[in-house]
Amino acid sequence: MAPPPRIPLLLLLMLFTLSAYGQSRPRDLGVKLGVMHPGPLNAITDVAGVRVGHTTRIEGDSIRTGVTAVVPHGGDLYREKVPAAIHLGNGYGKLAGYTQVEELGELETPIVLTNTLSVATAMNALVTACLRDNPQVQSVNAVVGETNDGYLNDIRGRHVTEADVHSALSAATEGSVTEGNVGAGTGTSCFGWKGGIGTSSRKLPESLGGYTVGVLVQTNFGGVLQIAGVPVGPLLERYYFRDELESHADGSCMIVVATDAPLGVRNLKRLAQRAMLGLARTGGIASNGSGDYVIAFSTATGNRISVGAGAVRSLTELSNGAVTPLFLASIEATEEAIINSLFAAEDMTGHGGNHREALPVEKVLELLKK
Amino acid sequence: MAPPPRIPLLLLLMLFTLSAYGQSRPRDLGVKLGVMHPGPLNAITDVAGVRVGHTTRIEGDSIRTGVTAVVPHGGDLYREKVPAAIHLGNGYGKLAGYTQVEELGELETPIVLTNTLSVATAMNALVTACLRDNPQVQSVNAVVGETNDGYLNDIRGRHVTEADVHSALSAATEGSVTEGNVGAGTGTSCFGWKGGIGTSSRKLPESLGGYTVGVLVQTNFGGVLQIAGVPVGPLLERYYFRDELESHADGSCMIVVATDAPLGVRNLKRLAQRAMLGLARTGGIASNGSGDYVIAFSTATGNRISVGAGAVRSLTELSNGAVTPLFLASIEATEEAIINSLFAAEDMTGHGGNHREALPVEKVLELLKK
Amino acid sequence: MAPPPRIPLLLLLMLFTLSAYGQSRPRDLGVKLGVMHPGPLNAITDVAGVRVGHTTRIEGDSIRTGVTAVVPHGGDLYREKVPAAIHLGNGYGKLAGYTQVEELGELETPIVLTNTLSVATAMNALVTACLRDNPQVQSVNAVVGETNDGYLNDIRGRHVTEADVHSALSAATEGSVTEGNVGAGTGTSCFGWKGGIGTSSRKLPESLGGYTVGVLVQTNFGGVLQIAGVPVGPLLERYYFRDELESHADGSCMIVVATDAPLGVRNLKRLAQRAMLGLARTGGIASNGSGDYVIAFSTATGNRISVGAGAVRSLTELSNGAVTPLFLASIEATEEAIINSLFAAEDMTGHGGNHREALPVEKVLELLKK
Amino acid sequence: MAPPPRIPLLLLLMLFTLSAYGQSRPRDLGVKLGVMHPGPLNAITDVAGVRVGHTTRIEGDSIRTGVTAVVPHGGDLYREKVPAAIHLGNGYGKLAGYTQVEELGELETPIVLTNTLSVATAMNALVTACLRDNPQVQSVNAVVGETNDGYLNDIRGRHVTEADVHSALSAATEGSVTEGNVGAGTGTSCFGWKGGIGTSSRKLPESLGGYTVGVLVQTNFGGVLQIAGVPVGPLLERYYFRDELESHADGSCMIVVATDAPLGVRNLKRLAQRAMLGLARTGGIASNGSGDYVIAFSTATGNRISVGAGAVRSLTELSNGAVTPLFLASIEATEEAIINSLFAAEDMTGHGGNHREALPVEKVLELLKK
Repeated sequence: MAPPPRIPLLLLLMLFTLSAYGQSRPRDLGVKLGVMHPGPLNAITDVAGVRVGHTTRIEGDSIRTGVTAVVPHGGDLYREKVPAAIHLGNGYGKLAGYTQVEELGELETPIVLTNTLSVATAMNALVTACLRDNPQVQSVNAVVGETNDGYLNDIRGRHVTEADVHSALSAATEGSVTEGNVGAGTGTSCFGWKGGIGTSSRKLPESLGGYTVGVLVQTNFGGVLQIAGVPVGPLLERYYFRDELESHADGSCMIVVATDAPLGVRNLKRLAQRAMLGLARTGGIASNGSGDYVIAFSTATGNRISVGAGAVRSLTELSNGAVTPLFLASIEATEEAIINSLFAAEDMTGHGGNHREALPVEKVLELLKK
Repeated sequence: MAPPPRIPLLLLLMLFTLSAYGQSRPRDLGVKLGVMHPGPLNAITDVAGVRVGHTTRIEGDSIRTGVTAVVPHGGDLYREKVPAAIHLGNGYGKLAGYTQVEELGELETPIVLTNTLSVATAMNALVTACLRDNPQVQSVNAVVGETNDGYLNDIRGRHVTEADVHSALSAATEGSVTEGNVGAGTGTSCFGWKGGIGTSSRKLPESLGGYTVGVLVQTNFGGVLQIAGVPVGPLLERYYFRDELESHADGSCMIVVATDAPLGVRNLKRLAQRAMLGLARTGGIASNGSGDYVIAFSTATGNRISVGAGAVRSLTELSNGAVTPLFLASIEATEEAIINSLFAAEDMTGHGGNHREALPVEKVLELLKK
Repeated sequence: MAPPPRIPLLLLLMLFTLSAYGQSRPRDLGVKLGVMHPGPLNAITDVAGVRVGHTTRIEGDSIRTGVTAVVPHGGDLYREKVPAAIHLGNGYGKLAGYTQVEELGELETPIVLTNTLSVATAMNALVTACLRDNPQVQSVNAVVGETNDGYLNDIRGRHVTEADVHSALSAATEGSVTEGNVGAGTGTSCFGWKGGIGTSSRKLPESLGGYTVGVLVQTNFGGVLQIAGVPVGPLLERYYFRDELESHADGSCMIVVATDAPLGVRNLKRLAQRAMLGLARTGGIASNGSGDYVIAFSTATGNRISVGAGAVRSLTELSNGAVTPLFLASIEATEEAIINSLFAAEDMTGHGGNHREALPVEKVLELLKK
Repeated sequence: MAPPPRIPLLLLLMLFTLSAYGQSRPRDLGVKLGVMHPGPLNAITDVAGVRVGHTTRIEGDSIRTGVTAVVPHGGDLYREKVPAAIHLGNGYGKLAGYTQVEELGELETPIVLTNTLSVATAMNALVTACLRDNPQVQSVNAVVGETNDGYLNDIRGRHVTEADVHSALSAATEGSVTEGNVGAGTGTSCFGWKGGIGTSSRKLPESLGGYTVGVLVQTNFGGVLQIAGVPVGPLLERYYFRDELESHADGSCMIVVATDAPLGVRNLKRLAQRAMLGLARTGGIASNGSGDYVIAFSTATGNRISVGAGAVRSLTELSNGAVTPLFLASIEATEEAIINSLFAAEDMTGHGGNHREALPVEKVLELLKK
């Protein structure tokens, strides 16, 4: 399927993008991943209503951490829950909220990402916010994911505060999403280089429903990096299994998948599973020590679960036979979101003088041209 | 909640029941299990449209086996699939069809129960029937459950034929269901006595939706039998753990749960899980060697999955907050179906001269009176 | 199997028990549940090395909550992890630590139980303790369970502190376990009466390995109470489904199962599943709103997972064919632990003047005698 | 890591390979996938003791099907079971034996692969063989996988016979494995080209234990083919999502993973999950209609489960911390096995005159050179 001529819009977007991100994203640089088209922002916020906010904590020699919040819609999520499912790519992590999401098929708080040792603090912040807004509530299922930024960040200091979480929630907006060394990606590492936050999206043609799938990742994992099929890791001699001195394997990847398609919980779970196939396409291997979680939710109008509604809900659901294009979208958007995080991340020195180089983008672009 | 005065109807039903079953069912004899009310037949067929058929094979000294078919509705199930889910109480069994039901949330063949070594034959029969009725079909997910009747039946002889399966399917009718030594329960054992087929139902009051939950069981398991809380097994000195000579523990229980409530697949799974709590109330322990499976489906009008329908389905779904009465119904109907199977079963001698006594009903009734 | 004559020991135990608990436990009062024998304390601490500690917070009109810690052994659990598995009876709860336990099959912190809104605080306390004792650690998987004591406790006040958790951990000892309105059971309700902490155990005969299974529960759930098979709930006219005014159904049950049997992770999971069958025997129904979790671990010598050990571990494992007696033990000890919690709990008035009566033990004993 | 100089051995192997396979395998042609080294045969049979056998049925215009058997060791598998686990990549398939393998962690029959509608026949054949060899056995859990070869094969004719299965079992040998249009891969399609059987392996360096991971695949799935990162599907204009006329997406992939590493069941499951990441690296997308199953087993000496052994087993197990190299091996060997199946498959015309071209290997090699 030939892409439709849409150069003027693309040019506009590129200008916008360049100013917003301070550096070009891979797609703007000619690195085209997959066969589907991204949405206008190539971000999780292409799914209407979805908001993202960051709190970035870079202080002194040792604090290199933060919080990223993904908010499914602009209302009160506790009173207007969204259908959701979580896939465990590899469960070596501290994700809060898993079992209730799985049992009830509902997400009732924003999704907060932070570092491994700050999960409890972020939970408390989400609980505080929910209790404040809902005076009768005695139970709330906070969903908090994490990766371990302890190489660059003084993670044992547990510097993330409840206020940091509230800031990220307040900062959450629609529109373009800052990538790289921000929010929960401030101090992360990926494939031996600096990781961070990345995002991407895919939009189905109208003939297939016109739905959007958006992905946001917090990249902190390893393996054997390949970009657009090019074995960048081996070519740059930095990859898992190269030697036994530094593994470049362990770590984690948090993946959030949003869609406006009316997927039921079972198919949201399948959509989430596909994100791991996208991670695989970047060379990720889901090592023993990796906490790889995919949280998928649907914003489809009419399928929200309202507190106080009647016993019987009317809803619409995409049939099994119609979900495959969304699966491909989940794969491609995850792959691209991960690569985006690597392109956006910048060199960082942190805790204990540890240093993590950014992916050498120009060198990579040369390798890709070959 | 006081039961409404409905004695005349009950009397009529008792007369009907006595003639249909040849012996009284526990409830007719005053053994009232649980706090909810059964449907008019106290059978899985109280769920409108559900049909049950048996083929019973009692031949010579050694053939003591059969087939039971549960058919969710009167149409072509392949073209009008029903939402379904399967719970693994203990997966030491040969259930066919599990993974596809779980992945797609659909049941596309009747449920066939038979003996352990005849699962493949029953699958072939279901495939044959589907191919015959659907000339383009190249893939069909046959659902076949089993228990091991090898104590009374020459199971190694694999005497069940495809024709036996077709007979059970053809015999499937609405209305009352024969229990005891019939169909797939012909040669089974339970708690050290003769097991068999049992069925029961519960109907919710109209204020809770008026839904029906019906259960059919093939009982072939062990533990420490209790009826209406009375420790019948220990009192009759026949129970698992009494001694190490004969275990009375291993075996299996196949459980089919039908409902007309509009449950989505996730809540059907939860409904299925509750059936194991009903089994527990009879003293079942899900021993290592037990294949305890619960298959739940919904016949709710409007939620069937039609082959060839559009990409987006409209459906209704019971909210999480409204499912608890159905959970209790699943527990109670399973408990009573198991006890019903024991009351209906009769003494049997079979393969190798092995003999299995029926539960001594009169003695049990005496124990219960005390 | 006739019980061996051991009356003198029993008498001694009864005296000890009476003084330790302030009131008699059901078994001392003649309420004998199941067919297996308890260990000497009839408590989870019959599993050698297991410790239990409580912090009870009863203050002013509104604070009725606390913390209970179950500690698998006396060493540093992070450095000497134990094999563990978690079963989700019904996942409407906030259990922390689930996914990593399931992925790695290891428990690396004590199990802490508290109220729903204090899970994060308890996690932080466990993290603090682990970081303090292990100066290099950057990642720790805190396991915290909860039930909702918001009827009697000002749960929204989040009164549990990290210090409360540390107190419970410090207080953890071998020996008898206080039951009822203590620790995490301080403010809970069960079957419409006052719930609390309960514990029980079963010991296999030497011919079956002589292993012990111990259970501790935090009871806060509902259904239709039955004790030793007697329908106590209906007889006392307090049960779920009696009317629609007060449900007596929702709530939760946290269950911890310890054993010294060398069970691998897969069989620990099966052991955990069986605990729900014990809950069913008390009339529990795992309602929609119930968070029913079972955490099982093995203390078997030689199977601990030592940090820094080699790539290949030698271990022993009980064969599948030998696990059924342990399954029955898990069922019986869970049933009895729940009933123990009800017998030990006492009347309580709390938040908003709400009052919860204790189970009327004398009346119940009369019903049981009939 | 530079590969050690081992050209003479490689030359020998290439000569051997060329004669055995009739055409060169990708690695012989310079297509090197991944960073680890294959075993000497680059086949599942590099895992000592593993045997593979095929029955190929190409008859008349319409029969294009067959059977492939993977046999874990040379003994009686029922009496000497091996630890095993199964991962559901996408469960739209008819795999027999899933639940018992998952419950018990054991494989007690060879793994048989065939077409979708012949699963039951293959089960019957495995049961027949087991009953014949074990005169007391009344229960056997046959493991049979399938993909749908209905495009080239008259699948509705169900031409596979029990004798075909027995032939494949008898033919099973150690040594090199024929790939392409053989056995269960006779009539399959993959990425719009002819699929088939493929195999590959990886061997860890001695410093990491020297273990081998071998993979065998039956490829019948779709997506957007990429080989060594090169987007072969888009470049040859044959891929899912290119247009809506022919999907090139649905189908299935059966994957068998063998290892001699002493993995417990939990880590075998994780190893199996990683195979789907290998499938993703070829461009597979696990479409809605795909039955993607991974069966993993360990042949590790000392960990077999012998019928009649005592209650307590001694075994060795690889620690969690040592499994990551095996994960990468599973990913790489799966990726290469799939590509191998495409290179080995040849043009085929079959049922209804349908034709499936082989992957144009020379053209692909040119694309890869660029």
